[in-house]
Amino acid sequence: MTLPAVLDFARLRAAYAAGLSLPDMVEALLERLEGADPAIFITRTAPDALRAAAADLLARAPEPNALPLWGLPFAVKDNIDVAGLPTTAGCPDFAYEPTTDAPVMARLRAAGALVIGKTNLDQFATGLNGTRSPHGAPRCVFDKAYVSGGSSSGSGVAVAAGLAAFSLGTDTAGSGRVPAAFNNIVGLKPSPGRVPTSGVVPACRSIDVVTVFATSVADGLEACRVAEGFEPDDPFSRRFRETDLPARLRLGVPAEEELEFFGNDAYRTLFDAGIERARSLGAEIVPFDYRPFREAAALLYEGPWVAERLHAVLPFIDRKPEAMDATVRTIIEGARDMSAVDAFAGRYRLEALRREAEREWAKVDALLLPTSPDIQTVEAMEADPIALNARFGRYTNFANFFGCAAIAVPAGFTSAGLPFGVQLVGPQDTDEALAPFAARLQAAASTGAGLDRALTLPPVEDRSSDDIAIAVVGAHLTGMPLNGELTRLGGTLARTARTAPGYRFYALAGTVPPKPGLVREAGFQGPGIEVEIWRLSPDSFGRFVAAIPQPLGIGKIALDDGSQVSGFLCEAAALPGAVEITEFGGWRNYVASLARAA
Amino acid sequence: MTLPAVLDFARLRAAYAAGLSLPDMVEALLERLEGADPAIFITRTAPDALRAAAADLLARAPEPNALPLWGLPFAVKDNIDVAGLPTTAGCPDFAYEPTTDAPVMARLRAAGALVIGKTNLDQFATGLNGTRSPHGAPRCVFDKAYVSGGSSSGSGVAVAAGLAAFSLGTDTAGSGRVPAAFNNIVGLKPSPGRVPTSGVVPACRSIDVVTVFATSVADGLEACRVAEGFEPDDPFSRRFRETDLPARLRLGVPAEEELEFFGNDAYRTLFDAGIERARSLGAEIVPFDYRPFREAAALLYEGPWVAERLHAVLPFIDRKPEAMDATVRTIIEGARDMSAVDAFAGRYRLEALRREAEREWAKVDALLLPTSPDIQTVEAMEADPIALNARFGRYTNFANFFGCAAIAVPAGFTSAGLPFGVQLVGPQDTDEALAPFAARLQAAASTGAGLDRALTLPPVEDRSSDDIAIAVVGAHLTGMPLNGELTRLGGTLARTARTAPGYRFYALAGTVPPKPGLVREAGFQGPGIEVEIWRLSPDSFGRFVAAIPQPLGIGKIALDDGSQVSGFLCEAAALPGAVEITEFGGWRNYVASLARAA
Repeated sequence: MTLPAVLDFARLRAAYAAGLSLPDMVEALLERLEGADPAIFITRTAPDALRAAAADLLARAPEPNALPLWGLPFAVKDNIDVAGLPTTAGCPDFAYEPTTDAPVMARLRAAGALVIGKTNLDQFATGLNGTRSPHGAPRCVFDKAYVSGGSSSGSGVAVAAGLAAFSLGTDTAGSGRVPAAFNNIVGLKPSPGRVPTSGVVPACRSIDVVTVFATSVADGLEACRVAEGFEPDDPFSRRFRETDLPARLRLGVPAEEELEFFGNDAYRTLFDAGIERARSLGAEIVPFDYRPFREAAALLYEGPWVAERLHAVLPFIDRKPEAMDATVRTIIEGARDMSAVDAFAGRYRLEALRREAEREWAKVDALLLPTSPDIQTVEAMEADPIALNARFGRYTNFANFFGCAAIAVPAGFTSAGLPFGVQLVGPQDTDEALAPFAARLQAAASTGAGLDRALTLPPVEDRSSDDIAIAVVGAHLTGMPLNGELTRLGGTLARTARTAPGYRFYALAGTVPPKPGLVREAGFQGPGIEVEIWRLSPDSFGRFVAAIPQPLGIGKIALDDGSQVSGFLCEAAALPGAVEITEFGGWRNYVASLARAA
Repeated sequence: MTLPAVLDFARLRAAYAAGLSLPDMVEALLERLEGADPAIFITRTAPDALRAAAADLLARAPEPNALPLWGLPFAVKDNIDVAGLPTTAGCPDFAYEPTTDAPVMARLRAAGALVIGKTNLDQFATGLNGTRSPHGAPRCVFDKAYVSGGSSSGSGVAVAAGLAAFSLGTDTAGSGRVPAAFNNIVGLKPSPGRVPTSGVVPACRSIDVVTVFATSVADGLEACRVAEGFEPDDPFSRRFRETDLPARLRLGVPAEEELEFFGNDAYRTLFDAGIERARSLGAEIVPFDYRPFREAAALLYEGPWVAERLHAVLPFIDRKPEAMDATVRTIIEGARDMSAVDAFAGRYRLEALRREAEREWAKVDALLLPTSPDIQTVEAMEADPIALNARFGRYTNFANFFGCAAIAVPAGFTSAGLPFGVQLVGPQDTDEALAPFAARLQAAASTGAGLDRALTLPPVEDRSSDDIAIAVVGAHLTGMPLNGELTRLGGTLARTARTAPGYRFYALAGTVPPKPGLVREAGFQGPGIEVEIWRLSPDSFGRFVAAIPQPLGIGKIALDDGSQVSGFLCEAAALPGAVEITEFGGWRNYVASLARAA
């Protein structure tokens, strides 16, 4: 069999469903891996080990696609523990042999995904470019002269080059996003604390995030949903709760004085085009002041958080300083003379900037930013490794400080053939809420994913609005006396509809204002009753239900299209004395008939 | 006029309502202040300034009690800015003259309270005993040989001695609670971030809290409600949301191996009595492991947070080290050689302990702890100033690290006439939820407040949040298959109850898991059906209702006490084939009968 150019979930699953055997996929993939740039991986899963893992999966779940990530090959950044493979963090002398999977790894394995190896990275995840590794620099898949982006360099390239259906990266300063931008793929950076970081070599432990690269937002989200979730043994793991965003997004774009592309005019032009695409997809574009975000971003390498990186490599750096990449070592050693007072001063500065940033957040629902404002060749990067690297993080460094979720998506190519990416950045736990628009933004860019620039991209179902639909049948209908109870709660009318035939309808005795009762009866064939479907937030719906007096309540109403929706029920105890009005087919007709009679 | 021995709000307001003029109150108070221990205040409001403030208030709000804190005299710890009075933090050389009130001060002034002066404190709020001040040591109001507690020493004594109706303290390690315990009054320590700390000389800025001392929980809560609220200029200020506690509290008490009173057997006996009072008031007493709390507590002075204290006094301490109290200086200088790496290591340790503590929190709703396990004479304290002080913080030091709310209340006297106190400590933002039980606990101790040991104490109304009560009757009961739907939504069990007699109860046919149906019938006289009343936020209630499948729904259930509550209804259409089980009086009995039959 021939594998597709990139391994999107849909085509792999379709191939499995159509009869592609897991061993055949493994053999085809092993062949492709043989031809891949050796700089992508630090340690590959041995071919026989990969074959054995496939056999284990088949024994455990023989049916194709029987598990959420069944048979999907994935790569893991080499700062995340995979039992049986060394963890090196890009520093051979630092290597250790984990005996257990990191929790995130264990979850993906349990879901049926197959790990193909540990990928190259900027050593100790310190860098955004991909050249800071003794294993060589993975390259941008579109131009080998250019950097792949980092620090999750190998993981980004592995997906873009069709070696993996998805991959794990990490992101402290932008490492899970910049490689996505430089390789025409998607990088999902969850809100800090959603995906556990136990079993991950820390960079800045308090804000490290495990990320997912994939060919589409939909695929990445599937992997994220498996990977995320509270982990009691990770002190930075959180019990999260989805945060919604409105259907029409107000997207913040940095005001002109804060828009910096370091002379990369091609990227500037592509960013402008990305803004226009977002606008054409229905977003409201709102300029905002990026300054507090930029100043927070600067704290990551200029402030005391570098001491977290130092903490992470102690006592190794004392024992074998020469074993480290010279640039990485220079950066990390910079924390040697930082005091605890400096650490708290940095924290105070960050909290003040967070407050300033909140004023900007009040204007927007999410931010639309360049992922990186620039790209560089490997040669240029090696000549000026710190300053050029810092450019890449201009729009990414702040995100984890502020607890943000972010999704980096492709956003076009320069005339020189280099990819550009943008990111949607939202408040904490908007991970799911950002995804549908991010998916539309990627699709609208029409660049496919990775090396397959014609790939058809799946949409992401909009789960962002968890409004609840409620069918009203009487005094709450538009224009009726209690309609204000819905509108005051922020309710919106979605549509009118009709119940299934099995309902009788009654004008209840002694209700003020007059109210009907809707009662289902097995086997009854009536005309169906007219309802209005309103939408309320869960909070408003809850308050609405709690205020309903006897004998009414809210259960499920069957509609004539076969669906069910929350709607008014009536206790049978209220029917003595009630008048059946089923024949009117709805409260509005009945009320009109009374008016005519009067 | 003669002022009462302590200035509880009720008697002052009653006196105002009965004709006591504000100027007369001021003159009486000035007379009492003249006779007070000069160690209580560092700077008193000048008599004419107090008279002028009273005149201003009368001009602004002439009617007695026309503002929330109208005419209530209060004292302010001298690390909180009051415009017109110097802020010294107990260190004359550090003093500055604030031109604006701290936000908390401005709010209280606007509400009609009258500031009588700035109170003595352990210098830079570093201490829990009250002797670390160049202005002398305020004394326990019941025995002048003993310390007042600190660091809010003067503020605690001012309320206990009837000089102020309430006072402001601060609390980093326990400074807002220990003086309450040593003076038979109440100390309310809000959750960190609820009351702004702008305009407060920091101790550990990231966890400092402004507190309130009063004669009763009710009075203190009134002042807190005025003082609290988001302040945009304070980076550590939070937008809080009340967190409820169940009606019957599970109160955690340290298991025996962690209960330490340093040989103070009188206090141990009084704590045992406090536990019994809590039990007699309906709390369930649950032993828990205090170890992670104790280890977190130790971090406050043994970990890097001391560097926050150093940060707060830089560059003053470099310029004039000899101007500082020797003990305070020794403690603070201890942070000189702490590195940024140490700071992050301390944070990691704290986060790990937080996770360990969460396992204990899962067993309990709040903690019942000694406020201080010991009290000492001024003489003993001066001889061993650090070790004896550390004892006082054994049960208080952890609270702000963990974001807790706490209320310290009186809990009896030793045979030697020394007061003892206990504290209720709850999770973040249970401030309001803790108060009703704390008030009952104080009242049950029958020690009045401060010097008035016969004072009648007002209760605190249980201001339940806008949670919605829902009666469940079947598969959602505790221990039944669907109970997790409630707990996952954050639901809490409030109580069990019984419906009014007019309900028939059915085991529905073909439901998975098996479910009952509750059906009201006019005139029916059955045994009533057992229900559990759960509480859910409106949002969670809305989601819960939306997920209920046919034939069930949520309407109003009449209970046997005549009240109505949201609860499960069943469509009459589901009754064919159902088995009436009304005689069992509840689902639990019915299920048990099936088990016995099997």
